[in-house]
Amino acid sequence: MIAFFKPNTSTFQIAEMQLHLKQIGFESYQIQKLGLCMIPNLKNPASLESFNFIESIKQIDTPYQLASLEFKKETNFSVKDVQIGTNFANIIAGPCSVESEEQIFETAAFLHKNNIKFIRGGAYKPRTSPYSFRGLGKDGLKLLAEAAKKYELRIVTELMDLSLLDEVAAYSDIIQIGSRNMANFYMLSELGKINKPILLKRGMQAKVNEWLLAADYVMSGGNEEIILCERGIRSFDPASRNVMDVAVIPLIQSLSHLPIIADPSHGTGDAFLVPTLAKASMVAGANGLMIEIHPNPSKALSDARQALSFDAFEALLADLETLKPAINKPIDATYSVAI
Amino acid sequence: MIAFFKPNTSTFQIAEMQLHLKQIGFESYQIQKLGLCMIPNLKNPASLESFNFIESIKQIDTPYQLASLEFKKETNFSVKDVQIGTNFANIIAGPCSVESEEQIFETAAFLHKNNIKFIRGGAYKPRTSPYSFRGLGKDGLKLLAEAAKKYELRIVTELMDLSLLDEVAAYSDIIQIGSRNMANFYMLSELGKINKPILLKRGMQAKVNEWLLAADYVMSGGNEEIILCERGIRSFDPASRNVMDVAVIPLIQSLSHLPIIADPSHGTGDAFLVPTLAKASMVAGANGLMIEIHPNPSKALSDARQALSFDAFEALLADLETLKPAINKPIDATYSVAI
Amino acid sequence: MIAFFKPNTSTFQIAEMQLHLKQIGFESYQIQKLGLCMIPNLKNPASLESFNFIESIKQIDTPYQLASLEFKKETNFSVKDVQIGTNFANIIAGPCSVESEEQIFETAAFLHKNNIKFIRGGAYKPRTSPYSFRGLGKDGLKLLAEAAKKYELRIVTELMDLSLLDEVAAYSDIIQIGSRNMANFYMLSELGKINKPILLKRGMQAKVNEWLLAADYVMSGGNEEIILCERGIRSFDPASRNVMDVAVIPLIQSLSHLPIIADPSHGTGDAFLVPTLAKASMVAGANGLMIEIHPNPSKALSDARQALSFDAFEALLADLETLKPAINKPIDATYSVAI
Amino acid sequence: MIAFFKPNTSTFQIAEMQLHLKQIGFESYQIQKLGLCMIPNLKNPASLESFNFIESIKQIDTPYQLASLEFKKETNFSVKDVQIGTNFANIIAGPCSVESEEQIFETAAFLHKNNIKFIRGGAYKPRTSPYSFRGLGKDGLKLLAEAAKKYELRIVTELMDLSLLDEVAAYSDIIQIGSRNMANFYMLSELGKINKPILLKRGMQAKVNEWLLAADYVMSGGNEEIILCERGIRSFDPASRNVMDVAVIPLIQSLSHLPIIADPSHGTGDAFLVPTLAKASMVAGANGLMIEIHPNPSKALSDARQALSFDAFEALLADLETLKPAINKPIDATYSVAI
Repeated sequence: MIAFFKPNTSTFQIAEMQLHLKQIGFESYQIQKLGLCMIPNLKNPASLESFNFIESIKQIDTPYQLASLEFKKETNFSVKDVQIGTNFANIIAGPCSVESEEQIFETAAFLHKNNIKFIRGGAYKPRTSPYSFRGLGKDGLKLLAEAAKKYELRIVTELMDLSLLDEVAAYSDIIQIGSRNMANFYMLSELGKINKPILLKRGMQAKVNEWLLAADYVMSGGNEEIILCERGIRSFDPASRNVMDVAVIPLIQSLSHLPIIADPSHGTGDAFLVPTLAKASMVAGANGLMIEIHPNPSKALSDARQALSFDAFEALLADLETLKPAINKPIDATYSVAI
Repeated sequence: MIAFFKPNTSTFQIAEMQLHLKQIGFESYQIQKLGLCMIPNLKNPASLESFNFIESIKQIDTPYQLASLEFKKETNFSVKDVQIGTNFANIIAGPCSVESEEQIFETAAFLHKNNIKFIRGGAYKPRTSPYSFRGLGKDGLKLLAEAAKKYELRIVTELMDLSLLDEVAAYSDIIQIGSRNMANFYMLSELGKINKPILLKRGMQAKVNEWLLAADYVMSGGNEEIILCERGIRSFDPASRNVMDVAVIPLIQSLSHLPIIADPSHGTGDAFLVPTLAKASMVAGANGLMIEIHPNPSKALSDARQALSFDAFEALLADLETLKPAINKPIDATYSVAI
Repeated sequence: MIAFFKPNTSTFQIAEMQLHLKQIGFESYQIQKLGLCMIPNLKNPASLESFNFIESIKQIDTPYQLASLEFKKETNFSVKDVQIGTNFANIIAGPCSVESEEQIFETAAFLHKNNIKFIRGGAYKPRTSPYSFRGLGKDGLKLLAEAAKKYELRIVTELMDLSLLDEVAAYSDIIQIGSRNMANFYMLSELGKINKPILLKRGMQAKVNEWLLAADYVMSGGNEEIILCERGIRSFDPASRNVMDVAVIPLIQSLSHLPIIADPSHGTGDAFLVPTLAKASMVAGANGLMIEIHPNPSKALSDARQALSFDAFEALLADLETLKPAINKPIDATYSVAI
Repeated sequence: MIAFFKPNTSTFQIAEMQLHLKQIGFESYQIQKLGLCMIPNLKNPASLESFNFIESIKQIDTPYQLASLEFKKETNFSVKDVQIGTNFANIIAGPCSVESEEQIFETAAFLHKNNIKFIRGGAYKPRTSPYSFRGLGKDGLKLLAEAAKKYELRIVTELMDLSLLDEVAAYSDIIQIGSRNMANFYMLSELGKINKPILLKRGMQAKVNEWLLAADYVMSGGNEEIILCERGIRSFDPASRNVMDVAVIPLIQSLSHLPIIADPSHGTGDAFLVPTLAKASMVAGANGLMIEIHPNPSKALSDARQALSFDAFEALLADLETLKPAINKPIDATYSVAI
């Protein structure tokens, strides 16, 4: 059960209520920023009747609460004047890793030319092997920031460890949480306390419930600007790197107010499949795409197999144009259509 | 390796070659209808040099041979004047089970009105529990045949066991092999010997290699009219009945000449997800759709949760119209557009 | 709900009850051989009160009914004087496929020498590729029968298709249903009508519920002599052929009265892992083992990688001796210990 | 390829070699503590011939290098005088979470009485929901330390985030990395730099290759004291919380020199299955067990369903006694037998 407080409820009043709840056996969690208190196991609202500073109560039956469609109907916010959210569609593109000044500036210029507003790029890379390229670190972040500044792009980059939070937050506009960190609950809690949108990738074997609970971790700290990102799940067939769960897009939309985008690069693991799954995801209702591109894919230091060339990416953008009547959402600037 | 024979090669000549191969340690499999001989483990063509009735040889490196894109480039055929195949897209719709005369005639009339050419309907149903409705059996087949005749529809129905083959073949235009029978190798071999197209669903945990080998089972008997059908794979998340592997559609098209259609009804298990995944599958390149519909879904005796109402199905057809520029294949009659 | 009838209840009385149930909206399934009637959706026993030929009723809450521990407490039966069942442990061994007279007689003699009572061997083989050795067919069954007769062994062999039922039943003592046929419901129903024990392997991705429902299919036809067999499930890691679900052994024993044996040969797919998993399975409470052995594993025509040599199998038998205090069930003849 | 240096090789010499390698296109990674240099992509040893300070080279063909059996044959070390490793078996037990002084002292006393040397207990708990008990934090660590001191136990506790490393390291003897952090590569790298043994749980969907690469992350930092721990993998069947991959125990032993223990508490998720799988794991060759116990399981604040009562745990210890002839390794103090 969630209890929403009237505007001027005092800390003292809430503490009194929490004490009362504890005495009758119920844990409660105050979320100051949202002006509410979560009481997970309470089912009977009678216990709250005497507290007249409660404006309303809501009973939500799913394990996740704040991420649910019962909690609110939509999530929209803007990042440096670009609208993101349930009612929009945005394209994020860029290399897997920032590799060099030349590579990142060339990419940024290309995105700018194509009117894309968001650049992605990894500075600290999660690699399965310690003997693979692990990113340029802080130097990578700096290059990304310079290129983004020159070409008026917003930055999406991954946070690998909390110890890097200040650094990554300083250089990014949206903080990406990778699939391996989706269940890093300690990190999620900390992200609730900051003022940056979070792009929360689905764990490679995360159930929908678990994913939305991960969003609750962030939201219960007070940060409501979350974008979910489907990036493929692990299956039994080595024929593809992952299985892109396209149906999870409309499924999430039936359960949550959070926007959800698709990452067909990781979702398929193969450049030749990326454009097709990008289009399928948009038709399935995704609020955007995250696509790996590279000026010279065969030379990429990581994920070479799944990066699109610039030409292939432009062909995809052209294809998306023909899909607009079916997509029904404004896609970035040049691609915008009225709803 | 595959050895293709010149037109008038005699049985005796082939037998002689096979004997020679056996003596040097290689099994071979003659496929008379296709005028060829498969020699799976032979890598060096020199052993065949002396047989001058061999027109050409082909080395195919995948475990599946006849289903591969190296074997041929496309598969198109017609079923009672309707074109099916790699270059086309067709819609098959109908109830999970044939339940009554009224239900099946009402459905057939509805399909006819919407210019759909194929009706599906189960007479013998694979049910997880022996205490569920298992279909009307032969009576169901008869009703299906009468309704199809009246409304000029082609019939797709499932073969559950070889002992029913004559019966099912007599009443159907395309024989459906369900996901549980995809690895029923004895059945697949027998299906190679008949003259009916086979709709071969993917096993719920079949790897792509295994699926294409199942097609090879049928083709190696001489039957080349096969349609593959993706119907969702089993995953770790009980949030949905299956995970629809949309990416397998372009993946199969990069490996095989066989047409592939999508069954979003089983693929998602939920009526509210079906239209979205139907559209996503078509945009992903599917050669058609197989959709469960019912005049009154909530009363369906099987798979009630995933059947579309007539209204929902018509809405899907309208949506598919807006996708035509992106689909680029003729879809059935009314929906045909020039390639 | 299950209604059990008094001894002399007439067919007419039962039909009358079934008619009454149908009129009030409940399907019922009479299982004559077991003297009972299954009424899956009936929850309130009041509807049956007026039928005084009902001896007792039982409400079972799992989807599977006859396979449940609520239905009965244990299943024990004998096959040519050897006891099988919940209270026993038996070893079944032999080659994957019957390949030649020499191979099968050598194996049979070896088993006899080691006091093993059951021989396994495939005559019709389910092979993923149509270009693999598919077994000797009827000739294989005959060889198996001759060897078994000479060395006093009982035969376990697989039924691949119902059309082979008479033939396979004639030559075998226990009919094995492979993992691909576990959900072949039409076959399962037919097996309920015969008088042969059924060894029912778990499907490679079958849930426990589905597996026990498959047993219900057989039992609801009247055949109660079923042995379950865990043979590994499919996972995401290509490092092993399958993942042996050892915990399913005690899990099944907490849900069902049916005996369960372990097949570590398919369960692991690697000869070097087989003895270890065989021992682990016995310690986990298995009612026996099914092991692939071969006089010369490297020459085996199928499953060569997982077959134990005779020496390795004898070493396993010796190891099982040291485990007897922990196993607590009689294992075959020489290995018998008092409970 | 790994190049091992002669004892007095200077930093300068190594840097020179690395420069040379870089010039000819090969990245190399010096691991000072182990006196070696890893050159992942180098296959031809000729490039190293001129460097006479190289004592030997080793070509290891698996992606993981330092964790491989080719790198070394066994790993044994001691933790406050108790031997751990490939040649030993140890039992670690305790509650899921430290809940109160009473609970943890009662548990510690019980372990001491039973001659168990290691206590586990979580102070910071990874919980799927933010509205669940998340542990006592530092207070929990302190209680654990006091109880361990009084009862002469070694502490195993989980590190949830690098920011807690100093704190957790100060209070523990072995640092546990949970399944959600197995692929937290940044954390793994940092753990390579400390002097504490690491208990590295398998990710709930980690492939064997990925798990051993995670060990390589730690080892390549110079920390060689790693214990692997199988704790069940995620499957398609909600009938159990996880599937315990018992075969991975001998599989790992065929690939790696690292000891591997089993956690049947998480591996099964059900107290009634824990003792059976504990025994099966030991028979499968595990180097020990990690078991959740609680003075009053039904009152446990986390994982209540899988905790063993003290009685059940003592019964398991008694059962393990009867298995000793089959286990063939010394198990802790009272349970020690000569090899």
